[in-house]
This record gives sequence, C-alpha cells and structure tokens, in this order.
Amino acid sequence: MTGKKYVYLFVDGKAEGEGSWKELLGGKGAGLAEMTNLGIPVPPGFTISTEACVEFFRQGEQFPPGLWEQVLEALHRVEQAMGSRFGDADNPLLFSVRSGARVSMPGMMNTVLNIGLNDQTVEGLSRKSQNPRFAYDSYRRFIDMFGDVVLEVPHQKFEELLEKAKQRKGVTQDTELDAEDLQALVREYKALVERETGKSFPDDPFQQLRMSIEAVFRSWNVPRAVTYRRIHHLPDDWGTAANVQSMVYGNMGNNSATGVAFTRNPATGEKHLYGEYLLNAQGEDVVAGIRTPEPLDKLKEVMPRVYEELVEYANRLEQHYRDMLDLEFTIQEGKLYMLQTRVGKRTAVAALRMAVEMVEEGLIDEKTAVSRVEPEQIDQLLHPMVDPAGKYTVLAKGLPASPGAAVGKVVFSAEKAVELGGKGEKVILVRPETSPDDVGGMHAAQGVLTARGGMTSHAAVVARGMGKCCIVGCKELYVDEAAGEFRVGTTRVKEGDLITLNGNTGEVILGEARLITAELSGNFGKLMEWADRYRTLGVRANADTPEDAMMARRFGAEGIGLCRTEHMFFGEKRIDAVREMILASSKEEREKALAKLLPMQRADFVEIFRIMDGLPVTIRLLDPPLHEFLPRLDSEIEELAQTMGISKEQVRAKTESLREFNPMLGHRGCRLGITFPEIYNMQVRAIFEAACQVTKEGKRVIPEVMIPLVGTLEELQITKRNAQEVARQVMDEQGVQVEYLLGTMIELPRACLVAGQIAQEAEFFSFGTNDLTQTIFGLSRDDAGSFLPFYIEQGILRYDPFIVLDQEGVGEMVKIGVQRGRATRPDLKVGICGEHGGEPNSVAFCHHVGLDYVSCSPYRVPVARLAATQAALGKGRDATI
Amino acid sequence: MTGKKYVYLFVDGKAEGEGSWKELLGGKGAGLAEMTNLGIPVPPGFTISTEACVEFFRQGEQFPPGLWEQVLEALHRVEQAMGSRFGDADNPLLFSVRSGARVSMPGMMNTVLNIGLNDQTVEGLSRKSQNPRFAYDSYRRFIDMFGDVVLEVPHQKFEELLEKAKQRKGVTQDTELDAEDLQALVREYKALVERETGKSFPDDPFQQLRMSIEAVFRSWNVPRAVTYRRIHHLPDDWGTAANVQSMVYGNMGNNSATGVAFTRNPATGEKHLYGEYLLNAQGEDVVAGIRTPEPLDKLKEVMPRVYEELVEYANRLEQHYRDMLDLEFTIQEGKLYMLQTRVGKRTAVAALRMAVEMVEEGLIDEKTAVSRVEPEQIDQLLHPMVDPAGKYTVLAKGLPASPGAAVGKVVFSAEKAVELGGKGEKVILVRPETSPDDVGGMHAAQGVLTARGGMTSHAAVVARGMGKCCIVGCKELYVDEAAGEFRVGTTRVKEGDLITLNGNTGEVILGEARLITAELSGNFGKLMEWADRYRTLGVRANADTPEDAMMARRFGAEGIGLCRTEHMFFGEKRIDAVREMILASSKEEREKALAKLLPMQRADFVEIFRIMDGLPVTIRLLDPPLHEFLPRLDSEIEELAQTMGISKEQVRAKTESLREFNPMLGHRGCRLGITFPEIYNMQVRAIFEAACQVTKEGKRVIPEVMIPLVGTLEELQITKRNAQEVARQVMDEQGVQVEYLLGTMIELPRACLVAGQIAQEAEFFSFGTNDLTQTIFGLSRDDAGSFLPFYIEQGILRYDPFIVLDQEGVGEMVKIGVQRGRATRPDLKVGICGEHGGEPNSVAFCHHVGLDYVSCSPYRVPVARLAATQAALGKGRDATI
Repeated sequence: MTGKKYVYLFVDGKAEGEGSWKELLGGKGAGLAEMTNLGIPVPPGFTISTEACVEFFRQGEQFPPGLWEQVLEALHRVEQAMGSRFGDADNPLLFSVRSGARVSMPGMMNTVLNIGLNDQTVEGLSRKSQNPRFAYDSYRRFIDMFGDVVLEVPHQKFEELLEKAKQRKGVTQDTELDAEDLQALVREYKALVERETGKSFPDDPFQQLRMSIEAVFRSWNVPRAVTYRRIHHLPDDWGTAANVQSMVYGNMGNNSATGVAFTRNPATGEKHLYGEYLLNAQGEDVVAGIRTPEPLDKLKEVMPRVYEELVEYANRLEQHYRDMLDLEFTIQEGKLYMLQTRVGKRTAVAALRMAVEMVEEGLIDEKTAVSRVEPEQIDQLLHPMVDPAGKYTVLAKGLPASPGAAVGKVVFSAEKAVELGGKGEKVILVRPETSPDDVGGMHAAQGVLTARGGMTSHAAVVARGMGKCCIVGCKELYVDEAAGEFRVGTTRVKEGDLITLNGNTGEVILGEARLITAELSGNFGKLMEWADRYRTLGVRANADTPEDAMMARRFGAEGIGLCRTEHMFFGEKRIDAVREMILASSKEEREKALAKLLPMQRADFVEIFRIMDGLPVTIRLLDPPLHEFLPRLDSEIEELAQTMGISKEQVRAKTESLREFNPMLGHRGCRLGITFPEIYNMQVRAIFEAACQVTKEGKRVIPEVMIPLVGTLEELQITKRNAQEVARQVMDEQGVQVEYLLGTMIELPRACLVAGQIAQEAEFFSFGTNDLTQTIFGLSRDDAGSFLPFYIEQGILRYDPFIVLDQEGVGEMVKIGVQRGRATRPDLKVGICGEHGGEPNSVAFCHHVGLDYVSCSPYRVPVARLAATQAALGKGRDATI
Repeated sequence: MTGKKYVYLFVDGKAEGEGSWKELLGGKGAGLAEMTNLGIPVPPGFTISTEACVEFFRQGEQFPPGLWEQVLEALHRVEQAMGSRFGDADNPLLFSVRSGARVSMPGMMNTVLNIGLNDQTVEGLSRKSQNPRFAYDSYRRFIDMFGDVVLEVPHQKFEELLEKAKQRKGVTQDTELDAEDLQALVREYKALVERETGKSFPDDPFQQLRMSIEAVFRSWNVPRAVTYRRIHHLPDDWGTAANVQSMVYGNMGNNSATGVAFTRNPATGEKHLYGEYLLNAQGEDVVAGIRTPEPLDKLKEVMPRVYEELVEYANRLEQHYRDMLDLEFTIQEGKLYMLQTRVGKRTAVAALRMAVEMVEEGLIDEKTAVSRVEPEQIDQLLHPMVDPAGKYTVLAKGLPASPGAAVGKVVFSAEKAVELGGKGEKVILVRPETSPDDVGGMHAAQGVLTARGGMTSHAAVVARGMGKCCIVGCKELYVDEAAGEFRVGTTRVKEGDLITLNGNTGEVILGEARLITAELSGNFGKLMEWADRYRTLGVRANADTPEDAMMARRFGAEGIGLCRTEHMFFGEKRIDAVREMILASSKEEREKALAKLLPMQRADFVEIFRIMDGLPVTIRLLDPPLHEFLPRLDSEIEELAQTMGISKEQVRAKTESLREFNPMLGHRGCRLGITFPEIYNMQVRAIFEAACQVTKEGKRVIPEVMIPLVGTLEELQITKRNAQEVARQVMDEQGVQVEYLLGTMIELPRACLVAGQIAQEAEFFSFGTNDLTQTIFGLSRDDAGSFLPFYIEQGILRYDPFIVLDQEGVGEMVKIGVQRGRATRPDLKVGICGEHGGEPNSVAFCHHVGLDYVSCSPYRVPVARLAATQAALGKGRDATI
C-alpha cells in the first residue's frame, strides 16, 4: 500500500471501519461496516472514503496516488472471501458501486450494478445461476446503467431499443423476452454505445470498475445533487464515499426477494417491524413501481425462517443503535443479506412516541430522548394537518408562513371575514397583503393567504403569533377585489368558494381537503417535562392579549417577553380613541383621547397580570408609527371625520402629513414617547394602575416596562425618568408597592454599539432581532420578497435571515451588545423577543451567547423549550448564512 | 489662605495668571491678566476661577471653603493699589463683577457694576468726582442692576419708576433728571426692592459683593445660557469665572469715553484700527443704542494722545497675540484703561485676508494661517451672499440646506422652471418636497425651496451637489400648486412673484434682496496651497457629470470618489430608455433597452475620463430602486405607455408591483445587479469601452468600479466576477489594457461586521456614511424631519447625524469595518463618500481613523481640504453625539 489509506474493507464478519465513521465512510459505508462487525450477513466489499473523493476533485478528477492499488488489493480480499474472481469467465464475481455521503441524499447520486459482466463472464454467470435469461437480463441492465451513468448515453435511447425488441416479438412485458432476445438486445445496446460515444463498450471488468467509481465520485457534483445540498444547507466540500460490494440477487427465483424494513412504524411510532418486499425482484423494480410490494407480515408466511432472521437482525441493530432503523435487504435463494442500515426518518407523531417509549423500554435515557425529536416537528404536533394520504388539487404554492391547515370559504376583506366569522362560518381571508387594519379579520378567519410578502411580512408574523395557518407570497395569485375573485392562471376562485391551506407546505388547495388532528397524547407532556430538566435558557412568550397569555402559560412559557401594547389598540371601540389621539391638534386634545384609552389598556393589563400571576410580563410601550392606525378606506375616513366633527380633508391632510417614505426608519418607538410624552405616560399609568389592582387581589405582579427603539442613552434617560415618575405617582395614589424593572429593546445597531452607555440606565435588554435584521442587512422584511427568495435559491444566503438568525452579522452585533451591556452592568438581564426566539438554530445561538431567555409566539414555546434543551445538551446546531 | 487657590490677582502691572489660562480664568480673566503683565493699563482687580464656580454648584450653590477669605485678601491688595477703600465713605472704591467663561457667550450671563455704593459711599463718590449727578445716577443704576440680576426684581419695574419720575418733572430724557431727582429715585428704587423681596436693600458693600459673585456664578445656568451652550455645542460643566475689577468711568465728562476696537477690520480684513466710541458714556449706553457712536478715526482728532496710546496698545497686543483682537476700553478723565481683549470674530473674507497678510507680515507661519480660517467659512467664499447691510422682509425660515443666495421668480414645477430657465429667466423652484423628477428643474433654477425634508433630504443633497442655494423643511410654507401660490400665514406668494433665498441662514425673503459676490482673490489660492502642504488625507469629489467633474478639478479634488451612474439616467432622452428597461417583461426586452443606454453612458464616461486625466474615478453601479425612475404624473404615464405601445394600466400595474414599503431597505444596489445582471453588465461595458477609447487618445484613465449595498461576501463575488468578465471582454475587443480596481461601498452595518470577508474580494472600501447613518440609527433621512429637529433642540442629539458624522455609533461601525477590512488586506484603500466627506468635524474623524480619502460635493472640496489640513495639524475638532 502506498500513501494515505483510502479503502476500508468489510469482509468475513470483520470491517476496517465502524458505524461512527460517517464522515470518512459515508452513512452507507459506516452502516455496512457496523453490520459486518455485528456478525450480520452483508455481501463483502469495501468502501472508498470521502477523503478519496475530495482528493479526486482536488486533483482535477483524477484518482489520488495509491487509490487504485488499494482498490485492487481490497478486491482481491473480497475474491478470496467469495471464492470467485472478478472477470473470471467461469466463476465471475460481480460488483456494485454505490455512492454514500455523510448524510443521506436519496436518489441524488449515482449507482452502477452488475459491474464485471462482458461477453465471457455473462456465460459464467449463466452457468453458475443455471439461468441464462437472468444472466443476459443482468448484462443488458448493466450496459444500460453503465452507459447512462458512466458514458452519458441517455437511458431513454436504451429504452427505445428495448421497446422495439418487444414490438418485433409482439409482446408488451420485458419478462416476455427470453435469453436469446436479451442477447440480441445486448448487441444492439453495445452498438448504440459505440455510435453515441465513438468507442466500443469497455469489456475489461477493471476498466468498468474504475470508470464506475469515478462516475460515482463525479455524481457528487451533478446539478440535482448540488441543488439538494443547497436546499438542505449541506456544504459542498464533504464529498461522497463509494461502496464497492459484491452483488447479490433478489431476482433469482421465488426463493429470492428484495425489500425495505423499519424497526418501528415511521408514521405512527408503533413498535413493530414495518416494511415491504417483492419476491423475485431487484431493488430497481421496487422503485419502478411496476409491481406492488407486499407488506412484511406476509413474508412471515412465505419464508418464516428468513423472516425470523430479519426480525432478529432488526432487533439486534435497534438495540445496538438505540434508534429506529431503516433497513434494506435482499434474499438470494433463501439466504438473507442486509444491504443497508441507517436511522430512519419519521413523522413528528412517531418521533415523539418512539422517544418516549424507548426511554420506558430502557433503550435510551431522557437526554437522548429529548434530542431525538426535531424541535420543528413539535410545532406540527400542535396544529391540524392536511391528511397526506388524501387526494387533492394543488392550485398554487406560496411560502408556508405559519403551520397547520385550514379549510374555509374565500373572503377578500377583513370586514367580510369578521361578518361571516361572527356567524360561525369558516372563512379564509385572501388579501394582496395584510395591514394592521386586517388584524380583526385575520382573527375571525381560519387561515390567511396573501399574494405578497415574505416569511416575516405582517401577515406572517401576526398569523404565527395567533397560531393561525397562513400562506404568504403566493405570487401566482392575482387578487381582484373589485371582481370578487382571485385568479391563478385561468382558474377563478370566487368569494364563497371553498379552499384549503396547507401551512406546512405552502400549498393552496382547491376545495376542501381532509384534515387530521394530531392528538396531544401524554407523550408530549412527558417529553417536554424531561426537556425542561436539562434546559438553562429561559423561554417566554410574546403575548398581547389575555387569550395569548393563557396560551403562553398552557405551552409552558415562563413569562411574557413581549407584550405589544399597540396590538391592543385595534379593538373596535379603541381604534376610534386611538385615531382621535393621533388627529389631536393640541396636547390637551391628545390627553382627552388618551384618557379614553386608559381604562381599556388598564383592563387588558389587569387580565394579563392575573393570568401571569408570579411570572414576569415585559410590556413594550407604543412602537409603530402613528399612521399605521389611521384609516385608509374612503368610507372609514368619512366615518372618522364625522365622529370627530372635522372635515374629511382634515383627516386626509393629517394622514398625508404623517405619511413616511420609510416607516421602518421613521417616527416610531421612543421617538413617539419623547415627542408626545403623554402617550407613554398614559400607558405607564395603565400598567401600574393594573399592577396595583392585581397586587391588591393577592397575586404577584412582575412588570417589566420596555422602551422601544432606543438608539442613544439620552432617549432612555428621558423616557425612563418620565415612566418612573408616573409609576411612583400611581403607587403613591394606590398605596401599593410593585417591584418592577425598566429596560429597553435593543433593535438598532447603534444601541448595540453604545450598549455600554445604555446599560447605565437599562435594567434589561431585549434584543429585537427582527428590526436588527432589517437594519443590519438594510433589508425591509416587507420588500424582501422581490429578491430574497432568489438569493436563497442561488445560495447567496443559506437561510432567510428573518427566519434563522444571521449569526455572522446580526448575531455578531448581538454579541457586541451583550458584551458591552454586561461590561457596564454585570447582572443585566438579556433576552430576545421576536420571530427568531422560536427558531431552533437561533435558540441554540441565544443559549451559546449567554442570553437569559428567548421569547416567541405561544405556539412556538414548546419548540423553543426543546431547542434550548438540545442546545444545553450540546446538540445545538450551527447556522451561518 | 486656606485650601485650594481660587482667586487670581491682576494689579500693579503684574497678574497671577496669564493669557493661556482660559480654562481656569475664562477668556475675559485671561485677557485681563495678560494685558496687565504686558504693562498695559488695566483697572486692578482679580479673577475668581471657573473651578470656584464648578465647586459652587457642586456644593449646592455655596461658596467653597476659603473662597470668601481669598476674595477679601485680594480685595485688600486692590485697595492698596488704588489708594481707596471698599465701603469707605470718604474715598470709596467700587467694583464691577463680570462673568467670563472659557469661550465668549456674549450677553448670555450677568454683570453687576458700581458695587459698593450705599447712602454713605455715594456721598464720597459725589465729593471725589465733584459730580453729585454722576454719583446718584451711578447709585440708581446700581440698585436697578443689582435688583434685577441678584434679587430678581424685574428691571421693567425700575423703568416704570424712572418713567414716572420723568413724567412728574415733565421731561423726556433721563439726562434731564438732576441729582435731587435721582436721589429721590434711589429712595423709590429701594422701597420697590423692599416691597418685592420683603427685605431692605443690602447696604453692606461686602454683602453686595458676595451676592453679586454668587449671582454671576448662577447666571451660568440661566435658561438662555443653557440654550446658547446647546446651540453652540458647549459642555455644561465648564462653569464661568467671575472678574472683580475696580470701576473706571467713561461718563465723567467730555474727557471721558468708552469704546470698542478691532486691530483689523473684521468685515474686510483691512489692516487698520477699526472701531467706535462714545464720549462721556458708559458701556451700557453703547448697547442701549440711544446715541450713535463715532468711528475711532474721529478720536484721533478729539484726543490725539489717547488715540496714539490706543493704537500703540492695539499693536502691542496684536504682535503679542499674533491675531486680530477685539478690544474694549474706557477713557476716564483723559486716562485710557483697557477692559478686555480677545481674539476678534471675523467674516470669511476677512479671515482669509488676515491669515494671508499676517503670513506675509511675518506675524504667523503658514500652519497657523491655515488653522485661522474655519473650514465652514471657505464654503461661503464660493457663493454669492445676501448683503447683511441691506434691508429686507423675512417671510419664513427653513433649514439652510445649501449655502449661497438666490433671487428669482417663484415657480411650482420643474417643467415651468425648465421652461422659464431656458428663456434666461431667473426662477426659484418651490416644491412641497423634491423627487428625482425635479432634478432638471432644480438645475434650471437659481435656488430651491421646499416645505418638507431635512438637511439631507433629496432636495438638500442634490442642491449641495449642484452648489445651488437651497432651503428645505420650511414648515410654515403651504404650497398650493393648484392655486398657483404658496402661503405663509396670511401672506400669499403667487407664481412669478420675486423672492430671495438666503442659503446661509435659511431665510426666505419677500422680493429681491441685494446680493454680494465675495471675490475669490489670490488669497484663496494661496491659503489653499499652504493647506495642501500639510494635509495627509486625500480629498476627492462626488461628481456625476462632466460639468461636476470640471468643477471638481477646479476646486482641487484629487479624483472622483463617487460617480453615481444613475444620475446620468435622468436626461430627457435617457429616461425613456431607462423606463423601457424597467418595464421590460423579459430579459431580451431589457437588453434591448439597455443597448440604447449603452452609448449614452459611454459618452458620459468618455468625457469624465478625459477631464479627470491621470486621476482616479470611482464609478458606482446602479444603486436606487427601479421605481424611482418611473413616472408619477398621469400625463407622463400616458406618454410612456404610448411610447412603449402598451396600455396605461400595464404601466401602472408595473409601477404598483415595484412599489416598496421601505425603499431605503428594498430592492436596490447590488441586489438589482444580481437579479438583473444585464444592467450592471451594460454599465461595466460602457465604463470600459469609454476607458479604452480615452486611453487610446493618450490620456491616463484610472477607473474604480464600485458595487453598492453589499452585505455579504457572496454578493460581491457574483457581481465582481461578472464585472471582471465584461471588462476582460471589452479590453480584448479594443486591444487595450486598462488598470482598474474593483471594490465596494460599505453602507450596511453587516458589511462592516463581515468586512474581513468582504475584503477578500474588494480592492477598496468606500463608506457610504449617509446610508450607514440611516441603518445604524434606524433613521430615514427623508422622515427624520418630524422629530430630529426636536431632538437637537432638546439636546438629545448634539448634532444632526446626517450633517456631522456620529462618532460613537456610525464612527464606531466605520472603525470596525476599517479594522476588519485591513486585517484581511493591509493595503485596502479606504475612503468615504457622501455628505460627511465635506463636513469639517467628520473630515477630522476620517483623518484620525486612518482613511485614505474623503469624497464630497465639488463645492465642499476646499472645505474638506482645509479641514483635513487642520486635522493633520492637530486642530481637528471632536464631535460626539
């Protein structure tokens, strides 16, 4: 052997590698090695490492020095074990070459079977199998596959020749061709290859093998594989291993078969060997779907001994891997061979059940169990789902902005949604995009569908907050409100027509699809209880209403991390007072309008404080620009003008004067609190009047008053001083002491940069990573739809930064903010609120960067809890753009 | 003496302090000390240090221990020098107490004169002066002044009593009251004080003195002083000194006088003692403006000996201070006393002339000369000015967005401006706000006035770029285009009416004011030549057109730091092709439209490259969002639809689909270049075709291609690769090699954070501090008008961050970007382009942070050159928010 070791044998019950060597041997190779070591029958062979592949590309698609020699040496060992020889005309050994990357990329890369066949060895195979038809069929398949994969002669051209052969003979099934027909076909196939490539088909088995290995390596970089890696955020520099394995056949008669098995039911999690098989078939027949496979239970009847053996291997493997496995096997003339083992994919329901049951069986411990369920899967468990087994027509596809599923009648306005929703009808609100005006309608609807906007557009954020199914950015949709319909191509969907939204996939479905509700069995509670034992990061919820607060507690939130007071402003009666306040032409008028709002805000806070008894509630003072609250529709403007006794023109003029070019960067947050201190004063008064009242009721109230959009120390000083004064006043009036914190939302880059100063005044920081993402990237989440999807498609960004926190940019800024803030105030309480708080990668980041808590939508709280646990257990995933 | 030294004597030709101790003694005290040491006659006295004032406030407005004892001791020394005693009924010594901070705050703080008078000492003064009327008039004035300043009895009430006294006597002039009248008035004044304060007027001279000193200290914090400091960005913690000085009188007859003098003419810079005086008067008479002072030349005739003495002192002081001085003097019975000396304020013209002439006289060196002219003043020299001596009616006041002055007829649309401007008429374009559509009209107008927008709004930025007078954010203005007029209150100004804009003050003047043009004499050239000798920071200009480029060279720019290609898109014929390009529904259509633009862009670049022969030209590829180029007006939309042969609805629909919520954070910059690579490809082709052509002409072309709005390494990689390919192609086609750089604009916080990565690809960085300010502050410059002025007024921000670079936030981010960028690529060329590049504080910051160059509007280039020199000479000013 010369140079680096690239080739790892598995032969004679002993492998040079083992199951944990996935990086080196790929998933398949590691599985084969492990099974071999466990004494499970695996056709002997060897794995060429991923390092060889990486080196292959580094050297301009050349085998690295020594590799071929190592292959030949290993091949010789396999020959010895098999008692046959590669290329031997009498007793030929045949090989398969299969790709196998570190993680499974199903169907993306290439495989070549039956390597070693030529005009001589095919005769040997024929004699040995006493089955000439089988031998020639294998030979024909080999030329087709090798031609397609290695020589780039399109498979379709082989198919055409096959078709002609059947026509000539007047038959329809491949199986109706006999050995002679196939032999003739082999000649035609070889002639085809020669025509297409200008060279004769390689007869030398060693040349075949070498070319197959190279082709498998090259398939790492075929477009579909590259695209797959992009979609799944896998790096391009891993490379694939190549597994060279002696062939076994499931198509040598009715005592042969091929199949797949799961050690437990991957859909339900039930502990029972689950799978299917085909008698007298090869793997590709299963894939082709020409014959329908039988359930594994049937195999028990047909080949009881083999079945027992399979169950025994399955159990042994599950015990060994301590996880549910996905197995591939072949039975050649009554002998069982295992061809693959890997951890099986599973549904959310199954993942949960298996994790819990395996703990109960003593197979795994709690820490392992809580790492077994993907946090994202938890979200699905909390929502109804479109039955994947159902049949339905997908009309269009948008971005799956909020999970779950919803069926309802199409409506095009929030008013209509409220009207029909009030009558108990199920409606889907369809809008070009939503605005704060639509919040009531969204609430009344089962689901929301918009033509515009990204994953963090208004509709998306609000819907997720409500735990309501939502699809946004459905570009094919043209919403024609005037005509009372929306169109997708030539399909028109009228108001009142039924549609279904699949919020897990983004599919818009015509008509009513069947929905299933995943039951929240006791397993969910158990798993979450275990999760909380190993978690150090706090999890709070964003909750603006008493309903939200209740949901938050139900899902295990340890407080409210963000209560947006302005969301309380949109109630029917309130919005009028809010608008009066905004349109006020003097401080006195404004205070009059604010006085109307005070009891309403107080009442909300009273309820929320009661519900959150004993847990902290972070209340953010008014944040959005005032124009967001003003009416847009002509009828509304007229109504408001009448109510206020001013002219429509005055309302319009004021609205116009408040209009902003870039509202995101405008007159909002503490800038409002500073220019109109009476607004914040009213809100602080409402908070403390409520806090005093609920304290008197004997409950424990822990308010945390949060000033938004602070960029300078002075802004916080001014607003803090005012708030403290009002708080003091109210507590004096009420004769009650309420402990509270006063802090700020860190949502501007400048706030991170001067965090050391800001921490002089702030008792806590809550990073608003939505706005930070917008300002750090210079990216409006409402406008990103025109290029962000393209960026992700092209791999310019690995993730949508509004969904997964951008650790290099936004995360770096958060780190700077935390460091500088804690340098001034070591006990500074630091959290994040906003969308990222419920996204597992981002939660892991928050854990590692030392935050005290994350806060997210109530529905995402279990996701965040589980993600925080996994991060604490070291399973936190990295995510960089 | 106990404790710290607070009191510094100047007496008998010897002072305990000196002229450089301004921090300790204040400007006035330091000047008095220095004059005393120079042997110039100064009425003896002492200065109580600013430290005493600071301590006074620290101790809750109490004299610090030992201070009063030190005052008494010093007072005793003055008595000895004067041969009279404080409080002595026979030979009374009187004192003044005057404030004097580190820098002059004219008229902001308090003064008390004639301290030490009471019913006894007044008689002594009367006898000593042989002038009872003078004595009682001094006494009356003292009670008034002390009552007002120390006891807070409003001056108005004293005035009323004085008025009554005159009425009683049937006279109109104060001087018609005789000693008895004044004696009676003194009694009334004292009774008034007793009524108002409930206490009798303090007769004890020592109590008077102590109270006066306290009042002067307290006046540091009166509202007007606080406001003044805020406006002038002076810290609140300096405190003021208090100067206690023996009184001398210019009102003791016709051999007495008082006056002010400048060692050179502060308006023109002419070397000639300039000033005015009043015979038989006190300083307050000059201020009151009842009598008209005489020019100093007259004094030469009236008191030739005293005048010679004054000239001698003036010369001695100017030689000593080596600068033009502002002097105050009093002549008491033929004896000249100098009361104040300080460096005199001067106009831009005078500053320049004096600086140059003083070098020629050998009084100062070049380095001193270039530090003597405020960079901001240089700007004024380049523009016409409203004659400050003229009379005019100010109609309204806005923000002085671009300096200079302009007179013209009011027009309300860019079209009208172009139409009348084309006929040679002078017009002022008045708009609610401007958009890119108005650029042609702005160009045709003499000046621009807008009702909305801040110092960095579109109108402001474009006007400054054009060097055109502009006033923005003139809130009182209501522009009623429909009525063809604008209104301010009840005043209506119709289209065609003449107005004048004063771009230096923001004043909008009714009618035609007289303008003066400051001549650019040879002094300007000399000073700038000296400046360039000591400068290390490069200065380039932002120039989008050949005209700009010529201006840039004229003003001494060392290259173009920012050429915004999109500004070339607004030409008459071009905009149609641009719009076609935007409305194209396929890549092919887009390329067709781009092909039309190519020769136009190339022609521009050819001209610019020719002009900039031998100097670098940084060309930024398309940056603004496409919707900025689309028509807004119905008529324009119709025209465009016709030209393109599509329907108005299609144009509207496209416009609508391109609309953005936050265009600043939208689909712009390299995001356009990535989604529509053909646009950048056309621009790069135009650049290199032009570069090759001009190179063939034998000129030296140094293009620097700049990719805007890069936030990730990948964005730069993609756009760089494309640009390199096109450049290579063009150079191959043309058979010419052009050396060029490829870099990026750093205008997003993320770009600063990942600058280390970006520098792998970028050969230069140009910080776009306008956009960085917007994103770091979360502040849209177009929307900031609703609260930013309030912030500055309230001292929440010291400066408008769009004018003066925010060093704590934006500057910190720039530092991070520079450090990380240079860590990767030590020879990275780094500059800034944008408004801050021409602002002196910001230029100083750029020098200190190690940038290679700044780039600014051509008109600001001299300002930047001078500021860069001053920074290099260590005169750079700090500016933190």
